[in-house]
Amino acid sequence: MIVSNLQNSQRIEGLHPLFKSLFDYVKTHDLLHADLGRIEVDGDHLFINNVNPECVTSDQQVLELHHDYIDVHILLEGEEMIGWKALEDLQNETKAYSKEEDCALYSDRPTTYVSLLPGQFVIVYPEDPHAPVIGSGKIRKLIAKVKL
Amino acid sequence: MIVSNLQNSQRIEGLHPLFKSLFDYVKTHDLLHADLGRIEVDGDHLFINNVNPECVTSDQQVLELHHDYIDVHILLEGEEMIGWKALEDLQNETKAYSKEEDCALYSDRPTTYVSLLPGQFVIVYPEDPHAPVIGSGKIRKLIAKVKL
Repeated sequence: MIVSNLQNSQRIEGLHPLFKSLFDYVKTHDLLHADLGRIEVDGDHLFINNVNPECVTSDQQVLELHHDYIDVHILLEGEEMIGWKALEDLQNETKAYSKEEDCALYSDRPTTYVSLLPGQFVIVYPEDPHAPVIGSGKIRKLIAKVKL
Repeated sequence: MIVSNLQNSQRIEGLHPLFKSLFDYVKTHDLLHADLGRIEVDGDHLFINNVNPECVTSDQQVLELHHDYIDVHILLEGEEMIGWKALEDLQNETKAYSKEEDCALYSDRPTTYVSLLPGQFVIVYPEDPHAPVIGSGKIRKLIAKVKL
């Protein structure tokens, strides 16, 4: 996983041809005050879910794993913790991988948590099981989906 | 900063021409049982400090910042936490940048901490102030220095 802030996104933009498009879009639109919902940037190759979830405690959250998409979690408002555990250490699958949802779930406890402040982001690859939206209260965030 | 494990290092090896050399070297040498000290891989462009430090508590540790080198912290044995704070949020410099040591120090508190297990690594760039070697007891780790 990669942890940084929008100001320094150029450091990792070479890792995927659509990362620069994503960060350029986010930096040039006021998404905190935009409508919630899906934003199409490049069809199914790059879209953004603009969401306003209620955070949950760490023991209420499970680890997600995707195969087809990279997730870029960008915090707009509030505080969010995201748990992480190495793919190779997963043991407890609670929902088998569904191609349609591009998601498998695991009840393993994360080995580490990253705390995000607004303007910071976490990029997770298929080798990065992650447990997002941990904390208290409502947050505003973007979940960008970048097709591998 | 980038957090991953050695098994998945190929994901980010395109970010610097020497990353693959570094990870290939680490994967093909038993550095846990090697002598402590500096290992020259590519002169001043890439070297590894093989160290055995005593961890300190988070309030005893300060944030370090480098300009000329990327650090790759690779844990070999024990548990280590590494604190992080966005460069743009630093306020309390306690030691001005020294070109000779390639280091400045800050007493700001990290906004997040990453817990590492053996085989996992953290890459920190010049925009990533970091507070390493937090925890209890002695650990074995590598601090690879990769010239920017």
